[in-house]
Amino acid sequence: MRWDLPEADMPTTWFNVVPHLEGPLEPPLHPVTREPVGPDDLAPLFPMALIAQEVTGEPYVEIPGEVLDVLRLWRPTPLVRATRLEAALGTPARIYYKDESVSPPGSHKPNTAVPQAFYNKSEGIGRLTTETGAGQWGSALSFASALFGLECKVYMVRASYEQKPYRRVLMETWGGNVVASPIDDPGHPGSLGTAISDAVREAASRADTHYSLGSVLNHVLLHQTVIGQEAKAQLRLAGEERPDLVVGCCGGGSNLGGISLPFVPDRDVRLMAVEPTSCPTLTGGRFEYDFGDTAGFAPLLPMYTLGHDFVPPPIHAGGLRYHGDAPIISALVRSGRMEALAYPQSKTFEAAVTWARTQGTVPAPETGHAIRAVIDEALAAKEEGAERVILFNYSGHGLLDLSAYDSYLHGQLVD
Amino acid sequence: MRWDLPEADMPTTWFNVVPHLEGPLEPPLHPVTREPVGPDDLAPLFPMALIAQEVTGEPYVEIPGEVLDVLRLWRPTPLVRATRLEAALGTPARIYYKDESVSPPGSHKPNTAVPQAFYNKSEGIGRLTTETGAGQWGSALSFASALFGLECKVYMVRASYEQKPYRRVLMETWGGNVVASPIDDPGHPGSLGTAISDAVREAASRADTHYSLGSVLNHVLLHQTVIGQEAKAQLRLAGEERPDLVVGCCGGGSNLGGISLPFVPDRDVRLMAVEPTSCPTLTGGRFEYDFGDTAGFAPLLPMYTLGHDFVPPPIHAGGLRYHGDAPIISALVRSGRMEALAYPQSKTFEAAVTWARTQGTVPAPETGHAIRAVIDEALAAKEEGAERVILFNYSGHGLLDLSAYDSYLHGQLVD
Repeated sequence: MRWDLPEADMPTTWFNVVPHLEGPLEPPLHPVTREPVGPDDLAPLFPMALIAQEVTGEPYVEIPGEVLDVLRLWRPTPLVRATRLEAALGTPARIYYKDESVSPPGSHKPNTAVPQAFYNKSEGIGRLTTETGAGQWGSALSFASALFGLECKVYMVRASYEQKPYRRVLMETWGGNVVASPIDDPGHPGSLGTAISDAVREAASRADTHYSLGSVLNHVLLHQTVIGQEAKAQLRLAGEERPDLVVGCCGGGSNLGGISLPFVPDRDVRLMAVEPTSCPTLTGGRFEYDFGDTAGFAPLLPMYTLGHDFVPPPIHAGGLRYHGDAPIISALVRSGRMEALAYPQSKTFEAAVTWARTQGTVPAPETGHAIRAVIDEALAAKEEGAERVILFNYSGHGLLDLSAYDSYLHGQLVD
Repeated sequence: MRWDLPEADMPTTWFNVVPHLEGPLEPPLHPVTREPVGPDDLAPLFPMALIAQEVTGEPYVEIPGEVLDVLRLWRPTPLVRATRLEAALGTPARIYYKDESVSPPGSHKPNTAVPQAFYNKSEGIGRLTTETGAGQWGSALSFASALFGLECKVYMVRASYEQKPYRRVLMETWGGNVVASPIDDPGHPGSLGTAISDAVREAASRADTHYSLGSVLNHVLLHQTVIGQEAKAQLRLAGEERPDLVVGCCGGGSNLGGISLPFVPDRDVRLMAVEPTSCPTLTGGRFEYDFGDTAGFAPLLPMYTLGHDFVPPPIHAGGLRYHGDAPIISALVRSGRMEALAYPQSKTFEAAVTWARTQGTVPAPETGHAIRAVIDEALAAKEEGAERVILFNYSGHGLLDLSAYDSYLHGQLVD
């Protein structure tokens, strides 16, 4: 069963969670001076509209018409009830998922790539640089850049560049210029840290070029709130007053923020972050100021972190391999408003294959983490004989991650 | 702009075009006796329900509720107006596409895989065999088999099995058992012909096993007519009385049949088949009785054919590499009701990349053929200053065909 929101009912504002947090967010600090960062510090990298959104206290922010026009290529996304999974589990829980995999790049990422491209274009910028690991974010920004006529240069972690050629080709199909990082050391396998450094350095050195980030920052999570706002309206169409539990996987926190932030004011709705045990930022990290990148170019953010030099093992859920978390997500977990738990990857692939064989679609390895938690919560509901409404974000499809499924299905996956 | 058909308005019957053809279809002939094939000849391979659908003269055939339940996982599919492509072309034509890429296997193929799995299950069959070339059909049948609890064995052309591991993994994720064909000659690269032979031989030799075909046959095209029926209703929602032109790419003819057959009775609607110049069955073949397979196990069908021993060059649009065409499509072309034209693959990739950079999604190489024709028709409308309503079938996405885009983008594609 599926609830399609009429195009006319698509949200026209983004929901700002900041006024709903228990206290104000602590500001990012300059990497050299350790003083709070001001607009002037960020202006070489970001358009003023995004800098303003980063610190706004307004409860809602209007979505520009040009952005809505592009979002309508795939939004509103469907809300679907996973009745076949429910039946297979024999659970009294009602499981709903918001299907963000239907976007052209196959994930939630274009929800922020599109406004970022738009605001840069509006302020006269002709080129964007960014980094990408497994490639979901680079794909989304290449896509958005194509639609707004921007050049897009993607620094891709060299190991991924060489091992995952299809993500590179996808970016190139949209006209993206993809290069392996670090550019100055062809023997180095690269990391998200080196790629951020390459992308930031180029943006800072060229007046026609800005930098774009796909997670962590407040404005990124703001843009993703179309997900949760749509889901709220669709749950009402489905006859549900509210969910008991909202679940999302968490790397930097953008898809989790997207589905969960609009539910923060609904105090009786549980919110849950799911992360890998191999990169347990929320469940095993410390809350402190840390650099956003490995090289220490980026501002220090108040967040849960494993240390900016933490190197996570090469799990297949590349989008969850970040040493920190969005300050907004960190604040929610720290205040107790949001729960966090972690799973080893074999358990998440087991859940993902169960999903594929009942619901029919193949989830991204990242999304498999959310599905694992949803299955366990649905089984707990069965144990308790409790009806329960569970909503989760189906953040992306796994069609470009099939080599990971190959490893799992043939017993070659290591936890 | 997108028109979502309410779930309640999904078609509950398949549309049978046979009563609307100019004359009766000539029957298939037995490969050995050359006599018309009867139900008893087909019973070892197909369930009786499908054999009956193959020859029915009823104007509509009811879709079983259990089939509708599964189709609802992704149907009704969206009808979308390609306004960004229109703007890029500067055409007065209004271009609509029916998006069949949203199914879990990523193409129109499950529209028939699901009822085929259902009818076999209903008649006590526990296993299906089939062949697959590039893998779209094998994916669809593995998917459908998983949902109905059937075993599925896919004979995959060895060259594809070795060069396209991701399609194999996708089938395995749904529980499909994929083996390289020919099974008895590991040094042979295989062909659709050898794979059909392997699959038919196994089905014929085991009482618990049937064979399943993904195109060409009447019942397959019948199942695909949900596409065109939905599109008709959605065009009315969009305020269009009727299309001037309906376009589909054509290999065996199943996606083309799906979008176009419900428009056959509307005499002023042009219907157009688009095929590759390297496998020009409709534009360069002869209409005659020929074997459905290379080995001569399958019945002889009255169709346009290049000869059952024709070996098409290894173009990337694997789904269009079939030596013949569905008898229904052949009859429509022969009577003049349907047009046919052919393109070399470089022209189709050029169109596909234009599409990706305007509309945002990456089409399957097969679908690129339809897009090429649509662009040329839209440019012709511009030349003539004529408003024109063009409908085409976006039969599948290209996310598992990115190596083909890699070749095109880097100048390595040979026509």
